[in-house]
Amino acid sequence: MKGLWLENQCLSYRDQLPLPALGRDEVLVKLHLAGICSTDLEMVKGYYKFTNIPGHEFVGEVVQSPANPGLLNQRVVGEISIYCGVCPTCLAGNTSHCENRRTLGIQNYPGVFAEYLRLPARNLHLVPDSVSDEKAVFTELLAAALEIQQQIHISPGMRVLVVGAGRLGLLIAMTLGLKGCELQVVARRHKPIEILSNLGIRCISPDQVERGRSDLVVEVTGSPQGFALSRTAVRPRGILVLKSTFAGDLTLNMSSVVVDEIQLIGSRCGPFKPAIKLMENNLIDPTILIDSIYPLEKGLQAFDRASSPGVLKVLLKP
Amino acid sequence: MKGLWLENQCLSYRDQLPLPALGRDEVLVKLHLAGICSTDLEMVKGYYKFTNIPGHEFVGEVVQSPANPGLLNQRVVGEISIYCGVCPTCLAGNTSHCENRRTLGIQNYPGVFAEYLRLPARNLHLVPDSVSDEKAVFTELLAAALEIQQQIHISPGMRVLVVGAGRLGLLIAMTLGLKGCELQVVARRHKPIEILSNLGIRCISPDQVERGRSDLVVEVTGSPQGFALSRTAVRPRGILVLKSTFAGDLTLNMSSVVVDEIQLIGSRCGPFKPAIKLMENNLIDPTILIDSIYPLEKGLQAFDRASSPGVLKVLLKP
Repeated sequence: MKGLWLENQCLSYRDQLPLPALGRDEVLVKLHLAGICSTDLEMVKGYYKFTNIPGHEFVGEVVQSPANPGLLNQRVVGEISIYCGVCPTCLAGNTSHCENRRTLGIQNYPGVFAEYLRLPARNLHLVPDSVSDEKAVFTELLAAALEIQQQIHISPGMRVLVVGAGRLGLLIAMTLGLKGCELQVVARRHKPIEILSNLGIRCISPDQVERGRSDLVVEVTGSPQGFALSRTAVRPRGILVLKSTFAGDLTLNMSSVVVDEIQLIGSRCGPFKPAIKLMENNLIDPTILIDSIYPLEKGLQAFDRASSPGVLKVLLKP
Repeated sequence: MKGLWLENQCLSYRDQLPLPALGRDEVLVKLHLAGICSTDLEMVKGYYKFTNIPGHEFVGEVVQSPANPGLLNQRVVGEISIYCGVCPTCLAGNTSHCENRRTLGIQNYPGVFAEYLRLPARNLHLVPDSVSDEKAVFTELLAAALEIQQQIHISPGMRVLVVGAGRLGLLIAMTLGLKGCELQVVARRHKPIEILSNLGIRCISPDQVERGRSDLVVEVTGSPQGFALSRTAVRPRGILVLKSTFAGDLTLNMSSVVVDEIQLIGSRCGPFKPAIKLMENNLIDPTILIDSIYPLEKGLQAFDRASSPGVLKVLLKP
């Protein structure tokens, strides 16, 4: 089959990749659309050691499902953590933190940038007919945005600041925009400002951030500068959600975190069903983030495009 | 009056200090007992710039109260944040984080290591007759221990680890011991191990800490090593409470905090009334922490004693 292959930080297009061989309880999915995410770009830069087909954002159609024939021909999206279901962490309900987990297209499990992919049936979620492929391919990213609300009760009276308006930052802002809270987004580029303004969400520059006034700050830049700005913005006893990973270690004044009784909360993968529901009910339309769609054969150009500053979502199509 | 004086990181005993002059709504308190805390020791080391009478843990008797005559002759303890009551943070109920706050014996407000001290009447709490001075002097520290439960719901099924068994660590362990949860304390010295063992609380060495198994970890060492051990111990989606300030900046792998969805929560001053209640009902007896009681005249020797490794609570008496 056709697909992209990552090896020694080198991404290549291949047209003779073997079809995935299904393990027990796995299904074969024919790719409809896949999304390039910042993690994929970082893998090519070598931040993660991975040799296989990359990619984890997808929508597709089940074409083989030996153990679950009811899934055949269904349009699906899929959670990215392949979990054991028997370790203490899984049994405590935290399957996305499984101690033996593999991660679709990121760690010890082939990804989705190919004509076909495999996943355990229990990772899949059905996509309603009213949710297009172009929307459904955003499910994983939208779920990650919703994880914040899974972790924290956001009340309508809160002052919320989102620092960063890239792909994930925009979806976070869109989900928080549904809460009615006082929402501001630190954004610099024209396109995100346009998208947010059209949704009635206020954009500000870093200079306009008020010190110690936000009840909740969401850091989505993954940069030390973004973290410092976020830390400045959060009020005493406020919450700072860390939504991006950081390259290397971060140095911070932990005493001020203690004195101000700040909560720092790491946030990663989120719930798929609410993400699908919000798109089904037309409350979130992520397609406004689409920059371009490339065929798999032009995957390298697609990666180049996705890594250009300010470019939002680049999709791949078989 | 007699008292201790801190200036240019130099602590001295003085017997000719002026009596405190009362501001509006302030009362004059005759000291019964005061406690030396780690913050006091750090101030002498120069970590805080402060020139005045140090000290913030006390119990005493109201001897002048022009605006609130009902307080006269009452035995009292007092909250250490002198707040404005009108800034947005105060009005949001977070008076201990007041934007214009002064702090008893720490910041812009004279402290308690003297025969007399002053405080706003609204900072005071009455001490029931059944709570001795030797107990009541621990109110502020016990309240700080209880702040953890003010911030987090600790359910009986939780696995809790306290890292550090000094003065505050022991009180934290004693308060968490009332929850019925699975509690372990990382302790190295003989005295804390003896105290905790007598209370039926399990002590372990740093080597015995299990990786990623604790639902809640409380860091009370204030050292980078203690932080690293605490970070190792907390499970994915677990909570790490930071109860000690750290000298200088701390460097940490923030990406692992994001990936494991850890909550880091800074925790400082706590609620006085529940602290008094727990002592009144004989559920917490902090007097087992008392190492020695020195007269104010021997304050410098008391500070020397308090800064000796392994020494628990040193008290001062006029």
